[in-house]
Amino acid sequence: MKKLRGACLIGQSGGPTSVINASALGCIETALAEECITKVYGAANGIKGLLEGRIYDLDMEDPAELHLLKHTPSSALGSCRYKLAKAEDNDKDYKKILEIFRKYDIRYFFYNGGNDSMDTCNKISKFLLKNDYECRVMGIPKTIDNDLDLTDHCPGFGSAAKYIATTCMEVYRDATVYGEGSVTVIEIMGRNAGWLTAASALATENGAGPELIYLPEIAFDMEKFITDIKGVLANKKDVMITVSEGIKDKDGVYISSYFEDKEKDKDAFGHIRMGGLASNLAGYAGARVDARVRGIELSLLQRCAAHIASKNDVEESYMAGKEAVNAAVSGITDKMVGFERITGNKYECKTILVDLEKVANLEKKIPLEWINETGNGLLKPFIDYASPLIEGHMEYPSKNALPKHAKLKYVLVK
Amino acid sequence: MKKLRGACLIGQSGGPTSVINASALGCIETALAEECITKVYGAANGIKGLLEGRIYDLDMEDPAELHLLKHTPSSALGSCRYKLAKAEDNDKDYKKILEIFRKYDIRYFFYNGGNDSMDTCNKISKFLLKNDYECRVMGIPKTIDNDLDLTDHCPGFGSAAKYIATTCMEVYRDATVYGEGSVTVIEIMGRNAGWLTAASALATENGAGPELIYLPEIAFDMEKFITDIKGVLANKKDVMITVSEGIKDKDGVYISSYFEDKEKDKDAFGHIRMGGLASNLAGYAGARVDARVRGIELSLLQRCAAHIASKNDVEESYMAGKEAVNAAVSGITDKMVGFERITGNKYECKTILVDLEKVANLEKKIPLEWINETGNGLLKPFIDYASPLIEGHMEYPSKNALPKHAKLKYVLVK
Repeated sequence: MKKLRGACLIGQSGGPTSVINASALGCIETALAEECITKVYGAANGIKGLLEGRIYDLDMEDPAELHLLKHTPSSALGSCRYKLAKAEDNDKDYKKILEIFRKYDIRYFFYNGGNDSMDTCNKISKFLLKNDYECRVMGIPKTIDNDLDLTDHCPGFGSAAKYIATTCMEVYRDATVYGEGSVTVIEIMGRNAGWLTAASALATENGAGPELIYLPEIAFDMEKFITDIKGVLANKKDVMITVSEGIKDKDGVYISSYFEDKEKDKDAFGHIRMGGLASNLAGYAGARVDARVRGIELSLLQRCAAHIASKNDVEESYMAGKEAVNAAVSGITDKMVGFERITGNKYECKTILVDLEKVANLEKKIPLEWINETGNGLLKPFIDYASPLIEGHMEYPSKNALPKHAKLKYVLVK
Repeated sequence: MKKLRGACLIGQSGGPTSVINASALGCIETALAEECITKVYGAANGIKGLLEGRIYDLDMEDPAELHLLKHTPSSALGSCRYKLAKAEDNDKDYKKILEIFRKYDIRYFFYNGGNDSMDTCNKISKFLLKNDYECRVMGIPKTIDNDLDLTDHCPGFGSAAKYIATTCMEVYRDATVYGEGSVTVIEIMGRNAGWLTAASALATENGAGPELIYLPEIAFDMEKFITDIKGVLANKKDVMITVSEGIKDKDGVYISSYFEDKEKDKDAFGHIRMGGLASNLAGYAGARVDARVRGIELSLLQRCAAHIASKNDVEESYMAGKEAVNAAVSGITDKMVGFERITGNKYECKTILVDLEKVANLEKKIPLEWINETGNGLLKPFIDYASPLIEGHMEYPSKNALPKHAKLKYVLVK
């Protein structure tokens, strides 16, 4: 097949991760080196910036600064949470995109994000095809939530999982130093899938982690929660608990909503207080068991802690970006790069290509058979699955004893 | 001078740090190797366990496991927050301590903690002296708060400062990825002294940190807070703010108390909600400026993150423990080990000995001349002071890609 000549555009979308830029770098470096790719552009803030014509000229960047992207957390090109309408309903955005693609002769489009971004990719690709504009469209996955289907795991998950497991081990040490008992509730991201919260089980496996783990996959019950805690406290003075932000009761109601009371819930200045699930559950438990309680929300820290990234995750993320370009140049389009685990004693993983259309509408949850019978812990298959994903310490460049992150020029095209 | 022969006892007290065990290790390893020290004991949960006769026989520990204490966060011997009465008012505890010291022939007592622990040390020492019981008593400092006086800095501060600066840099990247503006408020420990919060200025110095920093040293004003934020937002779309948990208004009222409302502040289950200062201030700002807001509390994470400890801090902490034993064996008593910075181009620090009595009742705050005129940022003298303290990456032993912490046997003496 004759290679398609033209410019390429890369965009990033959705919640950032600590390795999303490693994927961008894999894509950018490969594209810069590719003879048939005439220019490398970056969309500022993903589709949103693209629609506004805010496009960076990445050829203008210093290669050494670009290379620091491998260790720089959080969408260096900027991100967005913009959902495209269906082209059948409203094709205004699509027409604008086509116009910009024509203007800059963009023949390769790489979009780095989660489910929604794959959906965006897919819609754009279909519209371009319908309008006879030849363009190779590839999705590069990213999500700490690990909830993309048709791939063994997602870039970003391993590093977030490593941060969570390490932090749980350290907090466990801290929370248990006093003679008196304690209840520590740690809130972890993951709205519908419990992968990240489950990663705290790796700490437990290493001797210092949560005794109780609550995932969105299992209906949460407030009574059972207290019974579970009392069960742990019958044998030891401290209990550590991890909960997914997205735990729901048997009727599908978010537990976090239990603590919302629009009337009462105003501070002295008259506006709604923003209490976290962790501190609310800690308070709830504190009134029912005899122990000091504390709630901790890992918040943004869990998705940007590049200083403790998993080497496997960083390298695989880079590989995903690189593979997206290679596949596109070889003539492939409408695919997302995924990972397949190679069976064997030693962990190895290779890239695969999956249909954008399929992956866009799926969500992968933790298999129920990986969760214990009492619904508050993980079993060996999960440990075996997650352990290799956090492997490897990623050395990072530093300056003044702090991480050295990429400083890009961000030259906008006229 | 003839060397005093007898057993030694080490205890840990107060809020833990990520390097408090490095000090304990310096003390334990030096004591184990010292000929005139006949036994090495550890007090379980500091003075509290000592009073209950819960004492560990540290000679029974495996030296290799003990050595892992250098990388193990949070008071491995357990901690307490127990305040001794004045001996003149009630000498019950003191008599009990003397009885235990006699029983085990404890002639060296090392106490690893902050101001209160130095006060405890001092009181015990005076009581033993008055009762003609020869015992060398030495304080080994520890506090992330860095508020002990008569020492250049405190073991534990450098590592917490490094965690805070690194985390601020990473969160800064994350919080600013969207096109829309954002206000991120990060709450940092330090009740009366702002050292830890000030450490976030190291991130700013490195190009990605808070634009506004509020310390307990400067009276906080809610109006000015909003004016400050608007000032930053006039020039850029995002603002990051760090606040000390202990900020107070001009009348000395804690700002955190502004948001407490015992009547309204109950959740659906009828008990007080525990809202953090960060999220409350974020909510307050969110109602007054046009930006997304978020509050993040660094909570325990900032004091137990041994995975990102400062090498200088770990080595100095070890040195402090070692020096305490050496000084005591050489005949010195009633002192705390402190640090003095050696003047020169390259950072160097040596141990000094300061009077327990003096240090117990002092609290060191940030010099006002290190704070900017608008009371919301740090000046170069602080950066110069703090930078060397976070220097050096401390490699740590790991297992399954997670930190390998010491597993002690904790053999109680009969």
